[in-house]
Amino acid sequence: MKSDIQIAQEAKMEPITKIAGKLNLTEDDIEQYGKYKCKISLDVFEKLKDKEKGKLVLVTAINPTPAGEGKSTVTVGLGQALCKMNKNAVIALREPSLGPVFGIKGGAAGGGYAQVVPMEDINLHFTGDMHAITSANNLLAAAIDNHIHQGNALKIDSRRIVFKRVMDMNDRALRNIVVGLGGKLNGFLREDGFMITVASEIMAILCLANNLSDLKERMGNIVVAYDLDGRPVYAKQLEIQGAMALLMKDAIKPNLVQTLENTPAIIHGGPFANIAHGCNSIIATKMALKLGDIVVTEAGFGADLGAEKFLDIKCRYGGLTPNCVVIVATVRALKNHGGVSKEELGVPNVEALEKGITNLEKQIENIKKYNVPVVVAINKFVTDSDEEVKFIKEYCDKLGVKVALSDVWAKGGEGGIELGEVVCDILENEESNFKPIYEIESSIEEKINTIAKEIYGASGVVFTANAKKQITELETFGLDKLPICMAKTQYSLSDNPALKGRPENFEITVKEVRVSNGAGFIVALNGDIMTMPGLPKVPAANRMDILDNGEILGLF
Amino acid sequence: MKSDIQIAQEAKMEPITKIAGKLNLTEDDIEQYGKYKCKISLDVFEKLKDKEKGKLVLVTAINPTPAGEGKSTVTVGLGQALCKMNKNAVIALREPSLGPVFGIKGGAAGGGYAQVVPMEDINLHFTGDMHAITSANNLLAAAIDNHIHQGNALKIDSRRIVFKRVMDMNDRALRNIVVGLGGKLNGFLREDGFMITVASEIMAILCLANNLSDLKERMGNIVVAYDLDGRPVYAKQLEIQGAMALLMKDAIKPNLVQTLENTPAIIHGGPFANIAHGCNSIIATKMALKLGDIVVTEAGFGADLGAEKFLDIKCRYGGLTPNCVVIVATVRALKNHGGVSKEELGVPNVEALEKGITNLEKQIENIKKYNVPVVVAINKFVTDSDEEVKFIKEYCDKLGVKVALSDVWAKGGEGGIELGEVVCDILENEESNFKPIYEIESSIEEKINTIAKEIYGASGVVFTANAKKQITELETFGLDKLPICMAKTQYSLSDNPALKGRPENFEITVKEVRVSNGAGFIVALNGDIMTMPGLPKVPAANRMDILDNGEILGLF
Repeated sequence: MKSDIQIAQEAKMEPITKIAGKLNLTEDDIEQYGKYKCKISLDVFEKLKDKEKGKLVLVTAINPTPAGEGKSTVTVGLGQALCKMNKNAVIALREPSLGPVFGIKGGAAGGGYAQVVPMEDINLHFTGDMHAITSANNLLAAAIDNHIHQGNALKIDSRRIVFKRVMDMNDRALRNIVVGLGGKLNGFLREDGFMITVASEIMAILCLANNLSDLKERMGNIVVAYDLDGRPVYAKQLEIQGAMALLMKDAIKPNLVQTLENTPAIIHGGPFANIAHGCNSIIATKMALKLGDIVVTEAGFGADLGAEKFLDIKCRYGGLTPNCVVIVATVRALKNHGGVSKEELGVPNVEALEKGITNLEKQIENIKKYNVPVVVAINKFVTDSDEEVKFIKEYCDKLGVKVALSDVWAKGGEGGIELGEVVCDILENEESNFKPIYEIESSIEEKINTIAKEIYGASGVVFTANAKKQITELETFGLDKLPICMAKTQYSLSDNPALKGRPENFEITVKEVRVSNGAGFIVALNGDIMTMPGLPKVPAANRMDILDNGEILGLF
Repeated sequence: MKSDIQIAQEAKMEPITKIAGKLNLTEDDIEQYGKYKCKISLDVFEKLKDKEKGKLVLVTAINPTPAGEGKSTVTVGLGQALCKMNKNAVIALREPSLGPVFGIKGGAAGGGYAQVVPMEDINLHFTGDMHAITSANNLLAAAIDNHIHQGNALKIDSRRIVFKRVMDMNDRALRNIVVGLGGKLNGFLREDGFMITVASEIMAILCLANNLSDLKERMGNIVVAYDLDGRPVYAKQLEIQGAMALLMKDAIKPNLVQTLENTPAIIHGGPFANIAHGCNSIIATKMALKLGDIVVTEAGFGADLGAEKFLDIKCRYGGLTPNCVVIVATVRALKNHGGVSKEELGVPNVEALEKGITNLEKQIENIKKYNVPVVVAINKFVTDSDEEVKFIKEYCDKLGVKVALSDVWAKGGEGGIELGEVVCDILENEESNFKPIYEIESSIEEKINTIAKEIYGASGVVFTANAKKQITELETFGLDKLPICMAKTQYSLSDNPALKGRPENFEITVKEVRVSNGAGFIVALNGDIMTMPGLPKVPAANRMDILDNGEILGLF
């Protein structure tokens, strides 16, 4: 069997100018980065302001399991399928982070015959967006410590600096550090830590900004610290948001690449899906909607986290209306939700499937609460038995939900036509009456309660004393009228990763509440969230190489 | 008077494909990064292997002063002048570091009417080379700490890790830090520190490698630490050089831009000129020599540091033969060497000039020791009196050295024709019998003594006990047969920045000796070298902005 990178390297890529041409983009509308990548000028919005926008399809999934659901693969494959059906489809995806590529992951951009290419570039520096975010983030961080060093006119409390430095690397030694050692010339000593770049609030801002001035304003609104009187200190008080925006002048432009079947794919932005909202940029999605008749996009993790944030945060800020939601499930993953261990997933087991499918049932119910049409995609694996597939189909029929088989990993777009036809049927015949699940004017507790009860199925929410104190503080400073970004385990509808399927009679505990005021959301943490991964014993980096002839080894 | 960025933004840039076309580069030979930047494929070397290479002109200067000498400006202006004279000239320059742009500097790429453009891109992320270096550096750094965390099979002594993390930012708080806090899951506690990216050994390696496999081998040869038995630990023992090379796959390709007058300029690599050798990459210079009939390049700081390292390190590793050296001097800077304070430099003062010109005299003598023809360029300032200019010209005549006035800052290429004519005369009529000043097979002490006595004019060299111990250690491990990279103040021929002009009867003190075994040189430090700058009280970043229409403010 061929590896992903082998398949990717055998792809017949078209020059990116040709892909852009398919979307009626001229040479003046794009900036090439090599032969197979380009950025799209934001002037295109003005040029196409009278053009009707396309329909928006969100691909999400059941709660992820070690079995893998293949959400990105289905997203790419569905885009390919729609193009095969002569639809003008554009895919909108998140950009991968460089750090994890060298850890366990080794790279990712879909899989099998449903990938975006050039995968080796997309997984490495791509067009430099991550580096621009890193630079803007670290300029602000340097400005904070410099402000203190130069006299601290703002009375920043060095024990309460909440804005951290970032690096696009898996580097556990930087999680908890002390900076400013070495005496008077070298700043003030304080505790600090690095996060990985994708966890940066700058990344979330890039993804929620509608244009450059919005980006700049949001960067200025970041709460970077609290002063000695306990009041928030904003980035704009350091007069640094202009330089940060300058560093982001190219990063704000969406990137265009293609799939293995030359379907246009816009890849732009990739925030964490726990402490941030986990979707590609609003600008990318809007651009795709201007350029395509159907846009296929995805959100991070399962529907309880990813789709909820897509619908309640991204769609709200972008003024977007999704026309259809695809929920990806696999036989294997549903059996895992039904209690089957990773090793036994290849064995047919309808009983376990029956038990685990309640996870899918709940995710379907949730999407319906947003009044958006939904379809289930069964992402095929070779070990799936006919009986198991039949069971899922019948289950969906009973729920009155459309369902389709997807075999895009093995067959590319051809394997996604069944799904593509259902999606097109929905887009043509069903109406979306999208409405977010909560109002941002509600109190923080109310908003969190709504998400926990309506989406997770919790019986209630427990706020720790610490969280309550933080909520009061945010209310005092008028920082509470923002959407909520739940930082919860992705493995369960509850906040306990061990509770598979559809847990009932559980409470959600909110341990900490933080504001990402620039991005524009309040993060509610249910536990510790890892914001700086580490390298494993044998990092993927150790098997990577590039030969003199340019051949690349070890990325997959 | 117009600012540099105003002049730059008014430039009529040609599409980079057209500039490439002038050099007979086809679309397959380049990779565009936007409309005005591209990378040149290394396959061009194979394609042009039978083409005769051009002549190499090095631009260097007297010891820098606060008055400024305008070395980069003369380099760019000379290239422009040669093109005006219908020569096929190519400029080869270092790329600027992002960090200092936000500190005091605000950007740099020549000045006035002798600039490279697009200056806003060159001064920001450019084509991402700095970011690739940062990533490769920090991958290796993460791999070191990860190795220790995962069992430390190589017995790395965590007190003797010499390879540091880097960031392309001025951030004094990161100079001295403690990493690995937070207990067992977060690594081992140790002292550490960040350098600015341009100080990274990876940058020096990029600039001294002849091709990708050379780059990879050099990265593997970096001494990253010493083990508990005191033996060097190499990067290749961590099996990480393949992944590092992969991260550098595009960074290794030279970047092509243009001057205000559309002269081709290759900008690639920019190592520190104290702890590293301060020249653009060998690959860039060789590429320029393949593409142009005359290549104008520069080296960092004054001739005692920059030209010495260019000739003894870069030319040695690249097999390069310079055909002419231009030494840039200004009336103002020479008066400063003669004891005049910065505030008084506008006042005509031939006496001070007579005293300070000994610095130029010594630099001329030095270049002659390498058997390379030399010419002095007087870089004109509005405050220069005719009498002062005449004095310098007559002084050079007496020394039998050619001299020419340069007025490229105000007039662009037109102002460099006098210099261009002298340079062409030398290239056509004088022979270069270039030979380095020392043999690498000599001992470390001998090599340092040769540089100090022959180039600096020192009476001798004092090695501290610490330096002696380090030299013995390098000899023990066979790491001593490398060229020397002196880390000395750039402001004086001596190691005391206060000694202007041509100091005599002084000794050089070597306090520390380090090996950059990957880059391939031994660094001899005469004092503390700052490898991580800080931001000033009001950083240049504070006045920077980008407006909605794309207009950029505050870069100059």
